[in-house]
Amino acid sequence: MSLIVQKYGGTSVGSIERIEAVADKVKTFRDDGHQVIVVVSAMSGETNRLIALAQQIEEHPDPREMDVLISTGEQVTIALLAMALHKRGCGARSYTGGQVRILTDKAHTKARIQEIDTQRMRADLDAGNVLVVAGFQGVDPEGNITTLGRGGSDTTAVALAAALKAEECQIYTDVDGVYTTDPRVEPRARRLDQITFEEMLEMASQGSKVLQIRSVEFAGKYKVPLRVLHSFKEGPGTLITLEEGNDMENPIVSGIAFNRDEAKVTIQGIPDSPGVAYQILGPISDANIEVDVIVQNVAEDGSTSLTFTVHRNDMKKARAILETVAQSLNAKPPVTDDRIAKLAIVGVGMRSHAGVAAKMFKALASENINIQMISTSEIKITVVIEEKYLELAVRALHSAFELEGADST
Amino acid sequence: MSLIVQKYGGTSVGSIERIEAVADKVKTFRDDGHQVIVVVSAMSGETNRLIALAQQIEEHPDPREMDVLISTGEQVTIALLAMALHKRGCGARSYTGGQVRILTDKAHTKARIQEIDTQRMRADLDAGNVLVVAGFQGVDPEGNITTLGRGGSDTTAVALAAALKAEECQIYTDVDGVYTTDPRVEPRARRLDQITFEEMLEMASQGSKVLQIRSVEFAGKYKVPLRVLHSFKEGPGTLITLEEGNDMENPIVSGIAFNRDEAKVTIQGIPDSPGVAYQILGPISDANIEVDVIVQNVAEDGSTSLTFTVHRNDMKKARAILETVAQSLNAKPPVTDDRIAKLAIVGVGMRSHAGVAAKMFKALASENINIQMISTSEIKITVVIEEKYLELAVRALHSAFELEGADST
Repeated sequence: MSLIVQKYGGTSVGSIERIEAVADKVKTFRDDGHQVIVVVSAMSGETNRLIALAQQIEEHPDPREMDVLISTGEQVTIALLAMALHKRGCGARSYTGGQVRILTDKAHTKARIQEIDTQRMRADLDAGNVLVVAGFQGVDPEGNITTLGRGGSDTTAVALAAALKAEECQIYTDVDGVYTTDPRVEPRARRLDQITFEEMLEMASQGSKVLQIRSVEFAGKYKVPLRVLHSFKEGPGTLITLEEGNDMENPIVSGIAFNRDEAKVTIQGIPDSPGVAYQILGPISDANIEVDVIVQNVAEDGSTSLTFTVHRNDMKKARAILETVAQSLNAKPPVTDDRIAKLAIVGVGMRSHAGVAAKMFKALASENINIQMISTSEIKITVVIEEKYLELAVRALHSAFELEGADST
Repeated sequence: MSLIVQKYGGTSVGSIERIEAVADKVKTFRDDGHQVIVVVSAMSGETNRLIALAQQIEEHPDPREMDVLISTGEQVTIALLAMALHKRGCGARSYTGGQVRILTDKAHTKARIQEIDTQRMRADLDAGNVLVVAGFQGVDPEGNITTLGRGGSDTTAVALAAALKAEECQIYTDVDGVYTTDPRVEPRARRLDQITFEEMLEMASQGSKVLQIRSVEFAGKYKVPLRVLHSFKEGPGTLITLEEGNDMENPIVSGIAFNRDEAKVTIQGIPDSPGVAYQILGPISDANIEVDVIVQNVAEDGSTSLTFTVHRNDMKKARAILETVAQSLNAKPPVTDDRIAKLAIVGVGMRSHAGVAAKMFKALASENINIQMISTSEIKITVVIEEKYLELAVRALHSAFELEGADST
């Protein structure tokens, strides 16, 4: 008898019909002899409804009270799912984050889990009950309700799986697994049976929205096997695990991730001397602008140029800051471009294979796609290209690294 | 600096506009130097919305889960009211029933308060905060969420006032106080400045819906002065207190209560022997039918007759039971009548005044109203009459006991 933690998001519990369908699915696992903990989000639309109520009062409501308010969303779902399980003759008990004592720090609306009391849950599981736990919420040492911020329900599920040493943490979503790339861009994209945490992290940070980065990090840290599955379709999903696949034909590249949310900022003709990068990026960081890819190069005249990407929404703000900085450095005025796309190939297989970058650049060159920036890590190569070539580039790379595979869906 | 507990019901917090208006009112009390605890209900309509969700799953959902579900209604209100107070620069903290530790027994959906932990509330009040507490809910010794049943928010307010020895517990409603009788029936009905707990209890049990009986009993037991006020109109309301008014012209009768919810059941020709009343009323009680007025009389032939009233919804059930009982007692078949009304005059002044009953009967007789049943207690005289005479009877008695008074509104 093994313990499984399952997480169903807002769309999966978005109506009474769907909650009943989730109850059916949970019951099959219980009937198969598993102990089951189910973590649920608020019914889709509910959190937004609550936020809208608060914002009728104030644009930036008190964070402590915001947590009291929006945590009711998950509380409604746990009660309804527990009722639906009872109706099926399946013992079940609902718990809020405070009741299972998911202890967090005091950072309202973005709290971090510190500790989970497992004693009561163990007793309940041993009594044969399914535990239905409210995702996204916890309680601080003084008993105030906290919420975990974006992707919080995934984090709750992983944290419970880690604390109770579950065999697997299953994240049910509206996709049937992690794909080699976005099937809307490359119809031949293939579902991966397995992927490593490292790869998943790189995929997620590059814009693959299947899982929140934070829950993947958490699962990797505590070695909790994560599985991404479709809420209402049968299938094995994708297992995210520590080990690389044992397959002889283990691919060099597992997937291609991309995003169009970024803009490029370049500043040229800056003196090639120590501390310059800090003089430029310090004020950007002070303005709470997150910087992603950074590339620096030396020009022939001994001066240097620095290019980095930021979120498109931050581009104008970054340019305004750099105009002042450029003046003080006697550099040229900053140049910005928001018609770019970021594209990365990801795979642990790269570590042991030379020539992966060359193969990538060749595939792009053969489609006449100019590479504007390059950045590499041990298991990822990122390029920035003109946005209009994005789809073409994804398909070229998907084909060059033979990601379609035999079991293409 | 005195402590006041205020309770606002669902209609008073039924929209963001009304919550803002409540915040304005609460702030004036705080600005006047009072410490304030505010108890709120769910926004009107919210509890019904939640119940409807549950009943889409099951007609009789699990009571524990029902409490988890419907307790979210008040939780939403406390957060929104606390936000509205912050917006006004008024320090405020919201608390669920579980957080202030309103400890109850385990009777889900109808729990009774056992204990309240006041330490944390005291500290918060002393720090200058308004406390906004979710009404209607508590937590059992194992940390399960419980709800208090009908009128639960009033009970929460009274219990907090008792535990913290508040100067006054103010119940804000959609009426501006307790009236001598229902103004829809007698336009000359007058708001009472003061009424005793005993009188209020009798008024409430006779159908005056201003306060739930349970919270009045509770307030009386713990000697908490209760005041009924209008949520959005200025005015002193009605103070419900232990002491009789000191007014020289203290009236004999304080008010006239009535209801039309009952039906009359009569069984005649029963043997006048010990145990007969029990033989008749035992099976009625076993069927969970509540009996109100009971009158027994001896007929000339040595047999006896018994008449009692039940809720109209229970009349047919009661008759079916008594048909069997009548046969076994060789009595006549039961006779029922649901076109009756119950009417009572209430007043602590009756204790020391003879002739009150006579005055009442005379007033009814002068309008040619036949009295079907009479029942008396120390501070109340109840009669049952034909329903169609109810309004006439109320006005006749209101006038006979001079309830209009000088300060009629």
